[in-house]
Amino acid sequence: MPDEKKNPGQVALDEFGIIAEFFAPLAKIDPHAFGLKDDAACIRTDPVEDLVVTTDALVAGVHFLNEDPPELIGKKLLRVNLSDLAAKGARPFAYLLTAALPKDVTAEWLARFSHGLAEDQDEFIVHLIGGDTVSTPGPMTASITAIGKLREGRMVRRKGARVGDGIYCTGTIGDAALGLILSKDDDPALSRLSRRARDYLIGRYRLPEPRVAFGPWLGEVATAALDVSDGLIADLGHLAENSSVRLVVEAIAVPLSPAATAAADMAPDRFMDILNGGDDYEIVFTAPDRLAEMIGRMAKELDLPITRIGRVEEGEGVELQDADGQPMSLDRPGYRHF
Amino acid sequence: MPDEKKNPGQVALDEFGIIAEFFAPLAKIDPHAFGLKDDAACIRTDPVEDLVVTTDALVAGVHFLNEDPPELIGKKLLRVNLSDLAAKGARPFAYLLTAALPKDVTAEWLARFSHGLAEDQDEFIVHLIGGDTVSTPGPMTASITAIGKLREGRMVRRKGARVGDGIYCTGTIGDAALGLILSKDDDPALSRLSRRARDYLIGRYRLPEPRVAFGPWLGEVATAALDVSDGLIADLGHLAENSSVRLVVEAIAVPLSPAATAAADMAPDRFMDILNGGDDYEIVFTAPDRLAEMIGRMAKELDLPITRIGRVEEGEGVELQDADGQPMSLDRPGYRHF
Repeated sequence: MPDEKKNPGQVALDEFGIIAEFFAPLAKIDPHAFGLKDDAACIRTDPVEDLVVTTDALVAGVHFLNEDPPELIGKKLLRVNLSDLAAKGARPFAYLLTAALPKDVTAEWLARFSHGLAEDQDEFIVHLIGGDTVSTPGPMTASITAIGKLREGRMVRRKGARVGDGIYCTGTIGDAALGLILSKDDDPALSRLSRRARDYLIGRYRLPEPRVAFGPWLGEVATAALDVSDGLIADLGHLAENSSVRLVVEAIAVPLSPAATAAADMAPDRFMDILNGGDDYEIVFTAPDRLAEMIGRMAKELDLPITRIGRVEEGEGVELQDADGQPMSLDRPGYRHF
Repeated sequence: MPDEKKNPGQVALDEFGIIAEFFAPLAKIDPHAFGLKDDAACIRTDPVEDLVVTTDALVAGVHFLNEDPPELIGKKLLRVNLSDLAAKGARPFAYLLTAALPKDVTAEWLARFSHGLAEDQDEFIVHLIGGDTVSTPGPMTASITAIGKLREGRMVRRKGARVGDGIYCTGTIGDAALGLILSKDDDPALSRLSRRARDYLIGRYRLPEPRVAFGPWLGEVATAALDVSDGLIADLGHLAENSSVRLVVEAIAVPLSPAATAAADMAPDRFMDILNGGDDYEIVFTAPDRLAEMIGRMAKELDLPITRIGRVEEGEGVELQDADGQPMSLDRPGYRHF
């Protein structure tokens, strides 16, 4: 259907045509997928490995904008799922894609969406093995079920943090939250931010960087973990609840990128938004302090910053402390961090 | 939140509340699900078994109507997936549910939807192990990824039918197609149909009966199989293509229920619609004739009609033959079958 790609009109393809043209190539080299020509995929398992399964959906107008580049939507959909696998200590194995497509979806949109997926399949070494394509009178809605593998019994749970453990965080926090604010262009306080910082932050919002390479290392050190999607404090709250512990976070230790640091200096009112804005897709985990050196070596090996941001105590909930060790109100915006 | 159930207003629950109240109970007794309180499910595999994975989505206004009973929507969603597993020879193991919910979804709707799932979990012995709940400005959209198990290497493919095999079909064909016509009340020729026949056919449309119990037996006899969702002839076309054979179906042999027989007598114009209307969720499969007796014993054991409807020949495509062995035009409606 090369003509249709050149002419981005409505897709004159039915479900089978869409699968054959845009999705089957994503499954081509995977023997579990049967070229998407069967009713199901078949996974040959390995007795010393467990499978980890997760699913995440994106809806146009809620999780992305209709005018967002289709490549980025495809990538984001896959990446948010791969981030979950990594946060559980698994490496990606395969995924299924369900797409509810509006009738006016164009061949160009589908080509770009599947191209984004194809690029990320190469980057993260994972393949499509199945799915479903339906039409919808509503907004584009897509979900992926991602399957990962790890050594038997080694999934890192939200439960398991122990009193005395340190709390660690990969990468930097708050970039995506700032990127969202900047892409809406709704904070005059940030108008002096450099173009480069602005592009960096918006890029971090549009395209998360799942810590896939770190996933298989995580199980060697972590007692509990999750990926930060709802916001650092909110997600640590889930970890605290599941582990029945209290998590104490030192605000000053939370790693910010240079761009986020510049933004936070300009708009100190935004600090709590930054800290708890979500969409970070970094991994927070707890680990015994005796493994601190090993964690440092991993960070070096992977060229991935891993920062100790606090400690696990007895009790419940999350406490954010200022530089003097005093508790900060989590719903008081505008605390001056700097 | 018992008050909210009594008062079917808008749900004053966020994603976490909805999961905790309506979906976590569906995962309660499954150790792979962690009570839906983690980012992923973990599946301990068995070295002598393969996993079969399939996914199907339903969209309000496309696959069901907003006014349909929520219990039936939940059941239909699960059943169309279980039907795929059965048609591959697998027994159900677990499933993940992704639900994009409109903002005005009520607690009553969710309670009834999850109640339908709960009933079918008991009936088909399968549990929820994960999922994602998001909001949508569009129609209710839900998908399930179902995971089944079967003996290593025993998945029944669409590919594999051999020249000389018989073609077999479980249950009866055309009931759902007639049920849809009747539920729209748009064929005066069917107005004389008895209330009982009408209810039966509409019931078959609204709630498919996946042949889950037959699934594990299928692998003992079938060379190829799929479930009939797009229509008998269309789906046999997929099987013929994947197996590189020609499928010859004797129209007179296609099993119709008493209600469908009565309807076909009243509206002979509808015969092709009936035969190819889809939504049957019966299993069609091919098997060597030497196993005919064994198939008969299975049918008796399971109390499930299994009918030989044709044979596999060399060539390609599907041919429908009349009682005299003459080819019937597949797009000529109104052929008088009776």
